[in-house]
Amino acid sequence: MTLSREACEALDRADPLADRRALFDLPEGVIYLDGNSLGALPRAVKARLDAAVTVEWGRDLIKSWNTAGWIDLPARVGAKIAPLIGAGADEVIAADSTSVNLFKLAAGALKLRPGRRVIVTEPGNFPTDLYILQGLRDFLPDVELRVVAPADLPSALDEDVALLLLTHVHYKSGAVHDMAALTAKAHAAGALTLWDLSHSAGALEVNLAGCGADLAVGCGYKYLNGGPGAPAFLFVSRRLQAEFQTPLSGWMGHAAPFAFSDDYRPAPGVLRTLCGTPSVLGLTALEAALEAFSGVDLCDLRAKSMKLGDLFLELMERRRLPFGLACPRASAQRGSQVSLTHPNGYAIVQALIARGVIGDFRAPDVLRFGFAPLYVRYVDVWDAVEHLAAVMVREEWREPRFNEVAAVT
Amino acid sequence: MTLSREACEALDRADPLADRRALFDLPEGVIYLDGNSLGALPRAVKARLDAAVTVEWGRDLIKSWNTAGWIDLPARVGAKIAPLIGAGADEVIAADSTSVNLFKLAAGALKLRPGRRVIVTEPGNFPTDLYILQGLRDFLPDVELRVVAPADLPSALDEDVALLLLTHVHYKSGAVHDMAALTAKAHAAGALTLWDLSHSAGALEVNLAGCGADLAVGCGYKYLNGGPGAPAFLFVSRRLQAEFQTPLSGWMGHAAPFAFSDDYRPAPGVLRTLCGTPSVLGLTALEAALEAFSGVDLCDLRAKSMKLGDLFLELMERRRLPFGLACPRASAQRGSQVSLTHPNGYAIVQALIARGVIGDFRAPDVLRFGFAPLYVRYVDVWDAVEHLAAVMVREEWREPRFNEVAAVT
Repeated sequence: MTLSREACEALDRADPLADRRALFDLPEGVIYLDGNSLGALPRAVKARLDAAVTVEWGRDLIKSWNTAGWIDLPARVGAKIAPLIGAGADEVIAADSTSVNLFKLAAGALKLRPGRRVIVTEPGNFPTDLYILQGLRDFLPDVELRVVAPADLPSALDEDVALLLLTHVHYKSGAVHDMAALTAKAHAAGALTLWDLSHSAGALEVNLAGCGADLAVGCGYKYLNGGPGAPAFLFVSRRLQAEFQTPLSGWMGHAAPFAFSDDYRPAPGVLRTLCGTPSVLGLTALEAALEAFSGVDLCDLRAKSMKLGDLFLELMERRRLPFGLACPRASAQRGSQVSLTHPNGYAIVQALIARGVIGDFRAPDVLRFGFAPLYVRYVDVWDAVEHLAAVMVREEWREPRFNEVAAVT
Repeated sequence: MTLSREACEALDRADPLADRRALFDLPEGVIYLDGNSLGALPRAVKARLDAAVTVEWGRDLIKSWNTAGWIDLPARVGAKIAPLIGAGADEVIAADSTSVNLFKLAAGALKLRPGRRVIVTEPGNFPTDLYILQGLRDFLPDVELRVVAPADLPSALDEDVALLLLTHVHYKSGAVHDMAALTAKAHAAGALTLWDLSHSAGALEVNLAGCGADLAVGCGYKYLNGGPGAPAFLFVSRRLQAEFQTPLSGWMGHAAPFAFSDDYRPAPGVLRTLCGTPSVLGLTALEAALEAFSGVDLCDLRAKSMKLGDLFLELMERRRLPFGLACPRASAQRGSQVSLTHPNGYAIVQALIARGVIGDFRAPDVLRFGFAPLYVRYVDVWDAVEHLAAVMVREEWREPRFNEVAAVT
């Protein structure tokens, strides 16, 4: 592996994704390694959103449901996400939040497996996945949550299990589950799978069809760069769509929403998972953002994602920086991030931010650095580790201002 | 009532809300009478959204959750809606869609009334209200929907009823329910009320506190002008908040979302009804839009809304235009719209649109004209009826192009 800044520059020159960075509006003097939390701004968004506000909303008003195709946005954006996750264009829609979509699909899975009332997941899963399951359990009769460590997942899958819900790439550790193997195990037990792709879509080669996956959700504002609180997406395998029922049977999922009939009749296919009127502005921004993926080879995307992480860890190790490793060392088992541990992790992240290197901190002691392959360069990784070394060698993190805990991030 | 265009101009000059129209970016040559479906574009939105995209997202990135107050948006926008609906600032949040919020509150109401499993509503209610209740019934045990005509509502409220769900202003007829009387009747039966304010908020003097209302939802993109698919709002009365449980227990409704703990613990107050990450762009547009209501007296708003409707109907009647009346004639019983019937309603609406008068059509035969008091003038009503008369006298609606049914609206 390369070990000079010049060699990193050479890698950038040879990068098949090098031209993508110019599609983003990145702030000067910032090395942004937090695209796993909020993706950077694609340049195409502003003009597209301006047109949606000024022309579609302001000038054409209600007509735009037809003339600007607002009504088709959830399916159109879903079809653009589909190739990034190995799904068919008719299996994905974009709407609502990841949490709401988790509820729809987990509840729907229970209906698809009558008689089975157990949902299996792992402790430490992204909180909203766990919280949504707890809400389901508290409202539906006899639902049992079986929260088991990854090693115990196979043995937890028995004939009572309706659903296995896992996040493909763990938000904190970056560890990647073997989607194909776990899906096969779930199917062998007669259970369905629901994969949360929030930390995989747009950075990894996700292959839902190849894994025989049943259901999936994911986030629009992380590697997909759809903007803060962007609509999320969901996937329902073609083979399940005709039977699928959502508890959130809102009018946009009706077979004929503008017939205004009193009785709910689900739309054909994945469209039945729509609920209320979707955020047109949010979907417009997300659709424009997805243009940055147009023509991208997912193999290139994943190869760069792994190389960026490997480079970061190798540079860290050469400098013997005093961090624990909270992510897998092997790139194939790691998402597009590295996770380190340090008792002063919070202050170290703040000191790095003061130097223009944006990562983030997750309690109690984890520093996360995400590598969005479309806009993070090899030289950025080099420079980030230089800054991290400086923060540690000079003990900058001891400054009191870096130790004041802010409300969020 | 005035009966000349000059008299209408005089009414506009005397209108205490006359200055508000300049806050909207209305297209030239258009009389927009469809603000009850999609509110017009407030001028403040574009600059505010530009700043959110360019500065908050593009430049400040993840920091904006703190520095731009993204995390507070649902409560901040809710607090701005509160005075329009007679609620406390701590009783309203803006997030998700009306449909999703209906589900949260209807399911939560069943929890608040253990042992009662009946939800009462009326036939012909806005479809999503009915569809969401049907979804609840199909997923929760033993839920019964009692769908009864308005006249039979009081007798339908018995000791099995957990919830009465009604739309305050009927989307099609514009008829206004007596919120105070029906809430009192529901309470006398031990039931809760859930009011859908989608066609009232921003046009009527809604007084949730004064009516002793329990729960409410409403739309952000009709009279509140938040833009297509804007986030909706919901209200939970202060006295119910501590007990309130939502099935959609996502991470944004957690007491400490950024603690990333495995166990859901609801936030205090109405914040517990938040679910996933809300649409920051959608909330930003809605917040900017609500500035148009700043300092508006709801009495003025409602008085103008009634007078605009009365003027429309009186001018219609004077000209003996051949329409049936699908809305109440008495303005106090009518929302901020008039609804007419005609067997060729669809083509007539299309012919009016060709003349720049935007109303809408609802199957099978209803023409709707909405009067958003912030930007519709008395002269607009005069001119709209002139156009309608011309369409009828010249039989413009017979043109084949006006009889081709489009996919939506």
